[in-house]
Amino acid sequence: MTTSPSPQESLSPVGRAARLARSAAEQLAPLPRAAKDAALLAVADALEARTDEIVRANAEDVARARENGTSESIVDRLTLTPERVRAIAADVRDVVALPDPVGEVVRGSTLPNGLDLRQVRVPLGVVGIVYEARPNVTADAAALCLKSGNAVLLRGSSSAYASNTALVQVIRDAVAEAGLPADAVQLVPGESRESVQELMRARGLVDVLIPRGGAGLIRTVVEQSTVPVIETGTGNCHVYVDAEADLDMAVSVLINSKAQRPSVCNSAETLLVHRDIAAAFLPRALDALAEAGVTVHGDEAVAAYGDDSKATVVAATDEDWETEYLSYDIAAAVVDSLDGAVAHIRCWSSGHTEAIVTTSQAAARRFTQLVDSTTVAVNASTRFTDGGQFGFGAEIGISTQKLHARGPMGLPELTSTKYILTGDGHIR
Amino acid sequence: MTTSPSPQESLSPVGRAARLARSAAEQLAPLPRAAKDAALLAVADALEARTDEIVRANAEDVARARENGTSESIVDRLTLTPERVRAIAADVRDVVALPDPVGEVVRGSTLPNGLDLRQVRVPLGVVGIVYEARPNVTADAAALCLKSGNAVLLRGSSSAYASNTALVQVIRDAVAEAGLPADAVQLVPGESRESVQELMRARGLVDVLIPRGGAGLIRTVVEQSTVPVIETGTGNCHVYVDAEADLDMAVSVLINSKAQRPSVCNSAETLLVHRDIAAAFLPRALDALAEAGVTVHGDEAVAAYGDDSKATVVAATDEDWETEYLSYDIAAAVVDSLDGAVAHIRCWSSGHTEAIVTTSQAAARRFTQLVDSTTVAVNASTRFTDGGQFGFGAEIGISTQKLHARGPMGLPELTSTKYILTGDGHIR
Repeated sequence: MTTSPSPQESLSPVGRAARLARSAAEQLAPLPRAAKDAALLAVADALEARTDEIVRANAEDVARARENGTSESIVDRLTLTPERVRAIAADVRDVVALPDPVGEVVRGSTLPNGLDLRQVRVPLGVVGIVYEARPNVTADAAALCLKSGNAVLLRGSSSAYASNTALVQVIRDAVAEAGLPADAVQLVPGESRESVQELMRARGLVDVLIPRGGAGLIRTVVEQSTVPVIETGTGNCHVYVDAEADLDMAVSVLINSKAQRPSVCNSAETLLVHRDIAAAFLPRALDALAEAGVTVHGDEAVAAYGDDSKATVVAATDEDWETEYLSYDIAAAVVDSLDGAVAHIRCWSSGHTEAIVTTSQAAARRFTQLVDSTTVAVNASTRFTDGGQFGFGAEIGISTQKLHARGPMGLPELTSTKYILTGDGHIR
Repeated sequence: MTTSPSPQESLSPVGRAARLARSAAEQLAPLPRAAKDAALLAVADALEARTDEIVRANAEDVARARENGTSESIVDRLTLTPERVRAIAADVRDVVALPDPVGEVVRGSTLPNGLDLRQVRVPLGVVGIVYEARPNVTADAAALCLKSGNAVLLRGSSSAYASNTALVQVIRDAVAEAGLPADAVQLVPGESRESVQELMRARGLVDVLIPRGGAGLIRTVVEQSTVPVIETGTGNCHVYVDAEADLDMAVSVLINSKAQRPSVCNSAETLLVHRDIAAAFLPRALDALAEAGVTVHGDEAVAAYGDDSKATVVAATDEDWETEYLSYDIAAAVVDSLDGAVAHIRCWSSGHTEAIVTTSQAAARRFTQLVDSTTVAVNASTRFTDGGQFGFGAEIGISTQKLHARGPMGLPELTSTKYILTGDGHIR
């Protein structure tokens, strides 16, 4: 018997990091909740105690971003203040309060032959996360992975490299002091694109790769990775106002869905209105959108109501139906029926979240049956599709794929399962 | 508003088939169990009524296989007799008896703000299956996919093309007569490798691709597909006999695991024996393996017991530890401890099924905690890892990956979920 490395072994720097992560994951997997929670509390304490160090490293990234002419909104996302570091530590403490998914018995029975069968949750193993310039993701992802017994390889934006290096050092020191393997949390070595390529090729060493960020990054990972991928966060959400709807509610849900925070994936990008309610609803809706500073990209039927309202209605093209604006813009169309709305959504939606506003029970039922998205909201804003809102605690992202996880991903989505079969010498 | 095809649209023959399948899947998704069960019963009846037609088509495949010098064991797998067609129809009726996974509420709660949240099972959509020359898989896969509300694209072996064409025609006719869309069940057009390539590139049209068959096929699909894949059936199962074990039970579990049906993925390929029990167990085990016709590929410690037994012990190399023999061969090694057995398994196992034979509760607990495979068996044969044995009814395969499904896959594994959020005009 030998214990030589398996044939999948890669000798790249990322491969070496992944192998250390795998070994750490094997140590984490059988740990009870108390050991993991103690380490997370140590991480939260260390983040607070070493705030100065983290903020100083972050200042380097911020200065470099300013030199490079980065937009103020991105610089803002990148910036860490002592207050923001405290908020990150508080997020880690919130994860401590969440139940441990590992060991949960998902199903179990005694088989007719007397064998006892249990399906239990186990960690995935090594989780890779590729993300943009948000240093808070570094600590959030590390905390969620540790709690679920996984090792994590973090590949943040090169523009946040100094911040992430400092954060990961603080986290690793605290994890090690708590008696857990520091290699459970690693920053992927190298700032180059090559390190993302190596992560995508680390099949057999990395169990899942989760890209978080822009559509381009996600598409690249989905198309090129041989490591299994969970696709996240592509949003093109719809609000459909049915023939029978409370007009006040419809306006309120529409404006909240579009304008409460337009830059996120669960904000609405298209309004669909049933022809029978268009004359009553659209003038009010267009005024409310104009007041909220939203530009409407409408079809001809919508445009017809534009002249009498405060709104500017731009003529919509097919591109509008498929665009995730992430801005104060919305596409708008009139449809002949609920089924017409469903057909439009099937054709153009990214499958994230679609809302219907209706007073009709039959319409609500048909819409929820026919629309196949991560979340279908009835008389509620699209903005509720969120791990925190769903009560899952922090989220590692919102999956817009159908395999493994769909919708906001919490701790259970960071696990797999195994079957345990117990007998008395049973044979077939 | 337009309903032009989405940008992912492919114009290849497989792309066109997938588009028809997607449309059929949209019709299947909201169907109640009764409608799907009625169609399945019609399929079972039609398979029996048109047995002659199916057997005749199969005879063409069998004749061609014989001409090509195909081995008798493969010809046997390919051959359909009237009795085997009746067995296939009976399998379809068994699927009727299984509960419908679609609509099952996986979790649900009322959120603090009063929103009602439900996570319900929904079909995956379009399932692609690539498989070898087993015509029974054609009907099994079609039945499981229909029951779970999915459309299926079947890409069987070209050596079974006539049989599959006849089977799929019978199934489609019955589905259509039952009022369901015939395009829910399609044979992938073309017998060439190009059609597999096209399936692998049909991202956005095909929701999941399941390769069933040899290691080469599975590796190709896993590495090249941009459609999400569920890896199945790679077996390199271990039986570990602990320091404290009932020797009769250990021999019985070992022989059943290895020799009851050596050609399948849940048969054992490696025996690991604790050093403290080797002198008592190995002579008996080697004799029993010899009687079962099994050749032992042993390390030096095992070979030392070979001279006094009926067995032939061949010297093992590293290749033996990683080989899935699927034959009357077994690798065998002596380990110093339970942890040594776990280390060997971590290094070499494919993560399918590992069994421990022990009288020690502590050893059973440690082994089940540390071994990370789809199934860990305590005092039971590895041969129980099977959808039928687990009570799941028919299985679409045994997943050896960690994402989405792990172990035997039944109907629930052919579903995704969506969240339904119901409010009274809730906004954030």
